[in-house]
Amino acid sequence: MTDTPNRSRRSAVERLEAALDRIRSPETEGSKVFTAVFDDNARDEAAAADRRAATGSTRGPMDGRIVSVKALFDVAGGVTTSGSAVLRGLPAAVGDAVVLQNLRAAGAVIIGKTQMTEFAFSALGTNPHDGTPGNPSDRKRAPGGSSSGAVVSVVDGMAEIAIGSDTGGSIRIPAALSGAVGFKPTSGRISTAGAFSLSSSLDTIGPIAASVADCVMTDEVLTGETPTQAQPASPEPATPETFRLTIARGRLFDRCEAGVLDAFEAAVQRLRSHGVRIDDGSIDPALNDIADIDRIGTFPSIEVGATLRGLGISCLDGIDPKTKARIEAGAGILAVDYVRMLRLRHAAVRSFEQSFTENEVFILPTTPIRAPLLSSVEEESAFHEFNGLVLRNPRVANMLDCPSISLPLSVDGLPAGLMLIGRRNADRQLLEIASTLETMLQS
Amino acid sequence: MTDTPNRSRRSAVERLEAALDRIRSPETEGSKVFTAVFDDNARDEAAAADRRAATGSTRGPMDGRIVSVKALFDVAGGVTTSGSAVLRGLPAAVGDAVVLQNLRAAGAVIIGKTQMTEFAFSALGTNPHDGTPGNPSDRKRAPGGSSSGAVVSVVDGMAEIAIGSDTGGSIRIPAALSGAVGFKPTSGRISTAGAFSLSSSLDTIGPIAASVADCVMTDEVLTGETPTQAQPASPEPATPETFRLTIARGRLFDRCEAGVLDAFEAAVQRLRSHGVRIDDGSIDPALNDIADIDRIGTFPSIEVGATLRGLGISCLDGIDPKTKARIEAGAGILAVDYVRMLRLRHAAVRSFEQSFTENEVFILPTTPIRAPLLSSVEEESAFHEFNGLVLRNPRVANMLDCPSISLPLSVDGLPAGLMLIGRRNADRQLLEIASTLETMLQS
Repeated sequence: MTDTPNRSRRSAVERLEAALDRIRSPETEGSKVFTAVFDDNARDEAAAADRRAATGSTRGPMDGRIVSVKALFDVAGGVTTSGSAVLRGLPAAVGDAVVLQNLRAAGAVIIGKTQMTEFAFSALGTNPHDGTPGNPSDRKRAPGGSSSGAVVSVVDGMAEIAIGSDTGGSIRIPAALSGAVGFKPTSGRISTAGAFSLSSSLDTIGPIAASVADCVMTDEVLTGETPTQAQPASPEPATPETFRLTIARGRLFDRCEAGVLDAFEAAVQRLRSHGVRIDDGSIDPALNDIADIDRIGTFPSIEVGATLRGLGISCLDGIDPKTKARIEAGAGILAVDYVRMLRLRHAAVRSFEQSFTENEVFILPTTPIRAPLLSSVEEESAFHEFNGLVLRNPRVANMLDCPSISLPLSVDGLPAGLMLIGRRNADRQLLEIASTLETMLQS
Repeated sequence: MTDTPNRSRRSAVERLEAALDRIRSPETEGSKVFTAVFDDNARDEAAAADRRAATGSTRGPMDGRIVSVKALFDVAGGVTTSGSAVLRGLPAAVGDAVVLQNLRAAGAVIIGKTQMTEFAFSALGTNPHDGTPGNPSDRKRAPGGSSSGAVVSVVDGMAEIAIGSDTGGSIRIPAALSGAVGFKPTSGRISTAGAFSLSSSLDTIGPIAASVADCVMTDEVLTGETPTQAQPASPEPATPETFRLTIARGRLFDRCEAGVLDAFEAAVQRLRSHGVRIDDGSIDPALNDIADIDRIGTFPSIEVGATLRGLGISCLDGIDPKTKARIEAGAGILAVDYVRMLRLRHAAVRSFEQSFTENEVFILPTTPIRAPLLSSVEEESAFHEFNGLVLRNPRVANMLDCPSISLPLSVDGLPAGLMLIGRRNADRQLLEIASTLETMLQS
C-alpha cells in the first residue's frame, strides 16, 4: 500500500519522460499501444504537478501520476475512435469524459489514448484497424482485451496506471493475460458519460495497474467523490478473520489449462497458510440464470447497434467481419425479447446479491487459459472459440453486476489471473480483501 | 386540508357499511365498478380501526379510511385479472402488492378491487370483459380510464380513496372526466412491485380522491416512508409568492372544446385574482423530443408484450381486438430501436428537468374534451381517436417522468380537469401548490 520507490525518488516530469522514452523505444511497441500521445499537454501537466509538490499544494496521491486512457474516452479536441475505422470521421469531442475530468482534477498526467479492440467488443486484444501490441511476456502472443493497449502501457512502463472499460471482462482479461491488476466496479459507481457505449446495461470503467493500492487510489478518483471520514481515502487491508473466500467450483473450471489450475490451487494453499478461510462452493444457480438470458440474446450485440445509430452510423461496411457478425446477431432481436432479457437480468442480479454477504468473495481463475499465440487466433472460428473462452468467467460479474478484480498469477513465465467476485456495491470491501490477498500471494 | 365532517362524526364501520350499501344500490353500478368486494375482511379491518380509535392507538390519518384498489394489484389469495379475460386463469397471488402492504400497515380498510380497462391500456374506461361503469355525471358517458372503476368508486361514495395506476394518464383522465382529484407521482416514488406492469418505463401508482389533502395523505402512505421532521406528514399549502404557474400553450391546446377552454381560462383568472403569478409559456421543445420517440414506437405496446410472455401468455386470442392491435404494433419493434427509444427518453427527461425549477408548475387542461358518450366510442376508429385525444396531454408527464395532478373543473354540469405538471421528483412541492390552488378555485 505504499508508493513505489521509483516514484518517491523521481519527479513527475522525470517519470513522464521515461514513459515517453518507452513509447518510442524500439524494444517496445508504443505505436501499437497508443492511438494518440499527448506529449506537450502531458509535459505541462507533469510540470504543474511538480510545482504543486514543491509548494506543498498537492492534489492527493494521484497528483503527478502518469495515466493512459482507452481510446473510447472523449478527450476534448480529439476524435473518439473506439478502435474502429468507421468512427474516424466523427467530429472531435467537445469536452472530456467525466472520468478524464476527475483524473485531471486530481492532478493526473494524461499521457495518451490506448489501442483497444473494435468497439471494445472482443477480448483477445487484436485490432485490424489500429494494430495489435504483442503480449509483454511474449510478443507473439495476444495481450488480451479489449483494454489491450491499456494493459501493455502499464506492463511496458509507458504509463503507471491505465483507465479501461469492462463490459464482459475487458479490464480483467488483459490484466490476467499480460500480468497486471485489473478492477471492474459495480455499474453506476463510475460515470460512463463521455465514453463510447458498447453496452449501456453492462459497461463499467476502472483501472489497470501494477498493484491493488493503485487501483484503490484510482477508483476513488474516478468516482469523483471527496473521501469522507466514514470512508477514508486509503482503506486498511482486511484482516483474514473478517472475510471468507468461496471457490466457484463447477462449470467455470471447465477446459482449464493444467498449469493455470495448478497455479490457482497453489495460490489457494498459500492463502490458507496465511489463515484465510476458503471453502469450496458453487455459483451454478446464477450461471443458470445467465444462460436463460443468453438463450434470448446478448446485451452488447443489441445495445451497440443503438449506439452506432445514435452516432449516425447505419452502414456496417468497414467494420471487421468478426465484429460485424456479432452486431448483425443483435440487429434481429425483437424489443419484447430484449425487455425480457432486462427483466431476467434484474431478477438474476437481485437473486445473486441476496445469496451472499459483503464479507464473502468468490474466487476462480480469471481465464481458464494463458495468452494464446496471435497466429492461432487469426482464423475466424478459432478466434471466436478463444474469445468466448476468455470471456466466459469474467462476464459473469458483468451480468450479475458485481465488483471484480483480477490479481496476477504466474505460470511458467506466462501470466494468468486469480479473479475475485464481490457482492454488488461492496466495492470497497472487495478492494480491501484484494489488498490483503495480494500481500499474502507476494510474501 | 381537514377531514370531511362526515368522517369525523362517523366510525369506520359506519362509513364502510354506507359504502357497501352504495355498491349494492340500484341507483349505482357497483357490480360494474368492482371486480371483487372484500365484505368480511373489510368489516374486520374497520372494526379494528374503530377499536384503535377508541383506545387512542390510531395508526395515523389513513387509519379506518375506506380504500378501493385497481384490479391490477396483487391481493393475496385472489387472481390479479388486470381487466383481461385471458388472465383469469392465472394462479392466485401469494402476497399483497407493496402498496397494499403499506395501506394495511397504515390502517386502511380495503373494500375491494375496481374495474379497469384491459391491461390498463386504453383511457376511456370501457371493458368488454368486465363491463363499463357509467360516468357518475351522466351514465351514458364514459368514466375515463384506465382507472375507471377507481374514480367511480370515489365519486359514487363506494370508497373514500381509490388507488390507481397511471402509465399515460390513467389516474388523471378518469379524475378529469368523472370529477375527482387524481395524482400521478414521479416514477420510483411508489413501488410498483406486485402490480401488473403495462409499461415498466412509464408505470406509476397514485390516488384518486375528493381532495388534494386526501391525495397527499395517501401518497405518503404509499411511499412506505415514515414522515420525518424535515418532511412533515402534512405539508403546508404553498403561499402564492413562493411559486409561479406557466400555461403550456401550443399544441396541447389544439382541438380543445370551447367549454373546456373557457373553464380553464376562468380558472386562470380566478387564480390570478388570488395573487398567483401565471405566465404564458410553452413546452414545445419537450413535445418535439417526445415526437421523436413516438416515431419509433410506444413503450406500453412493447413492454406489455414482455409482461404477458412472463406470465406465460403467448397467444393473444381472447384479448379485445382494440387492445390486441396495440400489442401487435409493439411486437414488431426491434430491440435496437427500443434501446434508441430508452436513450432518447432519458435525454428528454433530463432536458425537461433542467428547463424549469421546483417552484414552477406548468398548467393546461387535463383533457381537451369532456367525457364522450359511450355510444360514440363503440366503433373502432372513433374509439382510437377519442382515446388518443384524452391521452395526449396527460402522457406528456409520463414520458417526461414528472409528477402531475388533475384538479376538477365543471363545464355545464360535466366535469373537466385542470392539470398541473411539476418538476421531476418535486412531488411534495407540486402537492403543496395544488393544495393552494384547490382552495382558491373553491372560494
